[in-house]
Amino acid sequence: MIESVMAFPAETEGLGNQPLAPDVLPDGTKRFELTAAVIDWEVRPGEIVPAWAYNGMVPGPRIDLEVGDKVEVEITNELPIGTDIHWHGIDVPNDQDGVSPITQELVTSGSSYTYRFTTTEPAIGMYHAHADAHEAVPNGLFGTMYVGDIGAPTGQTVSGIAVPEDLAIAQDLPMVLNDAGVIGLSLDGKSFPATTPIIAEVGDWLRVTYFNEGLQVHPMHLHGFEQLVIAKDGEPLDSPYAADTILVAPGERYTVLINPTVPGTWVWHCHILNHVESNDGMFGMVTALVVQ
Amino acid sequence: MIESVMAFPAETEGLGNQPLAPDVLPDGTKRFELTAAVIDWEVRPGEIVPAWAYNGMVPGPRIDLEVGDKVEVEITNELPIGTDIHWHGIDVPNDQDGVSPITQELVTSGSSYTYRFTTTEPAIGMYHAHADAHEAVPNGLFGTMYVGDIGAPTGQTVSGIAVPEDLAIAQDLPMVLNDAGVIGLSLDGKSFPATTPIIAEVGDWLRVTYFNEGLQVHPMHLHGFEQLVIAKDGEPLDSPYAADTILVAPGERYTVLINPTVPGTWVWHCHILNHVESNDGMFGMVTALVVQ
Amino acid sequence: MIESVMAFPAETEGLGNQPLAPDVLPDGTKRFELTAAVIDWEVRPGEIVPAWAYNGMVPGPRIDLEVGDKVEVEITNELPIGTDIHWHGIDVPNDQDGVSPITQELVTSGSSYTYRFTTTEPAIGMYHAHADAHEAVPNGLFGTMYVGDIGAPTGQTVSGIAVPEDLAIAQDLPMVLNDAGVIGLSLDGKSFPATTPIIAEVGDWLRVTYFNEGLQVHPMHLHGFEQLVIAKDGEPLDSPYAADTILVAPGERYTVLINPTVPGTWVWHCHILNHVESNDGMFGMVTALVVQ
Repeated sequence: MIESVMAFPAETEGLGNQPLAPDVLPDGTKRFELTAAVIDWEVRPGEIVPAWAYNGMVPGPRIDLEVGDKVEVEITNELPIGTDIHWHGIDVPNDQDGVSPITQELVTSGSSYTYRFTTTEPAIGMYHAHADAHEAVPNGLFGTMYVGDIGAPTGQTVSGIAVPEDLAIAQDLPMVLNDAGVIGLSLDGKSFPATTPIIAEVGDWLRVTYFNEGLQVHPMHLHGFEQLVIAKDGEPLDSPYAADTILVAPGERYTVLINPTVPGTWVWHCHILNHVESNDGMFGMVTALVVQ
Repeated sequence: MIESVMAFPAETEGLGNQPLAPDVLPDGTKRFELTAAVIDWEVRPGEIVPAWAYNGMVPGPRIDLEVGDKVEVEITNELPIGTDIHWHGIDVPNDQDGVSPITQELVTSGSSYTYRFTTTEPAIGMYHAHADAHEAVPNGLFGTMYVGDIGAPTGQTVSGIAVPEDLAIAQDLPMVLNDAGVIGLSLDGKSFPATTPIIAEVGDWLRVTYFNEGLQVHPMHLHGFEQLVIAKDGEPLDSPYAADTILVAPGERYTVLINPTVPGTWVWHCHILNHVESNDGMFGMVTALVVQ
Repeated sequence: MIESVMAFPAETEGLGNQPLAPDVLPDGTKRFELTAAVIDWEVRPGEIVPAWAYNGMVPGPRIDLEVGDKVEVEITNELPIGTDIHWHGIDVPNDQDGVSPITQELVTSGSSYTYRFTTTEPAIGMYHAHADAHEAVPNGLFGTMYVGDIGAPTGQTVSGIAVPEDLAIAQDLPMVLNDAGVIGLSLDGKSFPATTPIIAEVGDWLRVTYFNEGLQVHPMHLHGFEQLVIAKDGEPLDSPYAADTILVAPGERYTVLINPTVPGTWVWHCHILNHVESNDGMFGMVTALVVQ
C-alpha cells in the first residue's frame, strides 16, 4: 500500500485533454481535425494497453469554442471498424448528431467525414463515438468540448460559502472518469499513481467538471474542501449547493467550484473503495489537490 | 450493429401501460380489477419469456385517479406463489400498504383480495408486488398510478427555459425502467428494437415520468433537448433544473418536461452503454423521440 | 419469506452507534479513545463474523461535538495491519487528515496515535480507516461524528410540508449503510431481522442521516411518509426537497426530516430488491418505522 502511494505522481508516456487549436477558414469557420486510431497507451507505469484514441491521446483533445462559432470537425477513421461522433450536450442539427445509421451513414474504416454546426448557447459537453460505443468509448474514444461561459453564482453565498463578485477562475479543469474497456478505472485516461495532481495556491478558485465516460457511477470525494456544485450537464443550477462527495453517473457532467484555503496534499478520489485500492495497493481513480 | 438499429421500431405482441377504466360503484367508488399471472411476453421480436404480469401486460395497466377518489382494487392471484400489492408513493392506510405478512396476510395462489383507500393528494406512484419482490417485480409485476395534478413551474424560467403560463401537455407518458428477471434490460417491458418511439410535433410540451422497477441505476439520456426536471417521486421540486441525463435509481421517479424544437429522430437511452449495446448490436434500454 | 419477516426484530449480541463520552482534560480538550480490533460480531441471529471494529461495535461509537471543541482522539491499533483514521466531512488540518503515508505515518499494528484538531463549523461526518480502506471499512471500521447544529428549514413549507417554527427533534438517528466485507448488506452493522426498528409517536419529528460506508449505491425507501431532504454531506441545502426514495452513494450523507402522522409498522429499506430479499426470505437492508 505505502509503496504504491509514494510512487505518486508517476511519469508515463502520453497526456490527454490537450487543447486543440482550430484552423480558421476564410469565412471564420473553426476547423478541427480528429483522427481515431488504436494506439499504445500507458495507463500506469509499464502498463501499456491498445487504447482507441482521438489524435493519439486519452481523453481526446479538449475543444474550446465560443457561442456562435461556425464549427467543422473532420474525423478520419483509422480504427478497424466504422465510427461516428456524437456531440453529447451540444446543440447540433439532427443530421449532425452522430448516430449512425439513423442520422448519418457509418464512417467506415479508412474513410473521413466532416461534421458542421454552429454553436447556439454556452455548454459543457463531451464528444464520443456512438456506434459500438459500449466498446469504443470505454476504450478511450472520448473528449471534452466547452462552449462559451456558463456563468457562476458570483456574489451569492451558497451553503455558507461566499462566491466573490469578481470571481477569477485560476484553473478550469476537466476530470474525465472511466472504469471499463482496455483503460479501466482511471481519471483522464490514467490510473494512480500515473494520474496528474492539481497544483493550486491558497485562495485560488478552481472550476472542475467531472465527465463520466465509463459504465458505472462514481462518487467523487475531495478531502479538505467543499465542492460547490454550480452546473449539471453544463446547465447552470438556479440553486447551487455544496457537498464533499459528488455522484457522477455515465453521461453526466457536474461542474464544481473549489476554493482551497489550507496548504497540504489533499487526496481526491472515487469513494467506491475498490475503485481506488486493491490488495496490491492504491490504483485507479485517485489523484490529489496540492495546495501551496 | 446497423441491422439491429434499422429494425426499429419492430412489432411485437403485447403492449404495456394501457389505461385501465374503473367500474364506478353506486357510492362513487372507482373499482379496478387486476389479475396477476404468468404469461408469454414478447420482449423482442421472437424472444418470448414467461413474464409475471398484471392483466396480461408489462408494465401492468396504468391507473389514473383524482384526489379524493374512493378506490377499490381487487387482485386475483393466478401466480404459482402468494402475492400482495404495495402502492409505492401513494398515501394509503397502514393496513392497505401491501406488505405481507406485516400489514396483511399473503394473498395465496388462487385467491383474491381487495385493497381500499381514498386518495389524499396528487401523486405519481407505482404499484408492485412486495412479497418476493426481488423475483416478482423484475419479472414484470409492476404498473404506474397517477393521482390528480402535481402541477408544473408555469410562467417560470428554469435554467434558461421558459415554461409557458398556459402550458398544455401534448402527451403525458410513463417510461418504466427494468433490467432484471425474465424481462431484462427494457423500457416499458420491451427491449430495443421492440420499444415504442415517442412521436411529437415541433413545439409540443411532453411530460415524461421515469419509474425504475429494476435492480440497477439508469442515467437516461435524451439527444437534442434538455429535460426539465419538475418532480422527484411525484413531489414537485421547489427548484426545478434542466439536464440532459437523469439518473434514476430503483424505486425513484423523476418527472421531466421536454419541449422539442427541431425535427428529426433523436435517440433516447440509458447511458450505461452495455445496457444498450452488445457485440450483437443495439438492444435493451433504447427508444427515440421522433419530432415532426 | 413469511418466517424471516415474523422474526423481526431479532435479538443479537452487540449494538453499534453507542455514544462515546469524552474525558475532559484540564484545558477543556475533549479526549476520546478508540481501539481498533477484530471482534466476533453477530450480524444476524447465529451468524457471527470477524468484524473490524472500533471499541467492539459496528458502527463504531457515535461522537458528538460542539463547534469550537478542542478534540483529541487516540487510536490504539490491535488489528493485524496498520491503520489510520480519516475524518470524512470534518474540517481538520492537513496533517490530521488521516491519509497515510501522505499526511502521516501508518499507525502500525500494536501501536497508538493521537489526532488533534479543533472543530470549526457544524458538520455531519464519518470517521473511518483510510489505509487499506477497501478491506477495513466494509469489514466495520467506521463510525459517525456530529459537530454542532447544522440547522433546519424551520418555518418553511417544503414540497407542501410545513416545518414548524419551533421544530423539536424527537430523535436524531444515524442509519449507516454497508454492503460488503464480512458484514455485507446491512443497516447499522446488522442484517434483517437483526436490524433495530425505530419507534416513534404520531406527530414526532425525526431527523435521520444516511451514511454510506459500503461499495454500492442504495436508494433508501420509507413507506408511508415523505423524507424531507435538508442536508447533503452535512451541508444544509438552500433548496430542501421531499422524496420517498433517497439515493445514497458511498461516501455521501443525506439528512432527512420525517414526520410520521399515521400509526402502524412502516417498512424502510433499500429499494434494490436483491439487497433485501433472497429466495431464503427477507434479509439485509430492511428495518421499520413503528408509529404508535
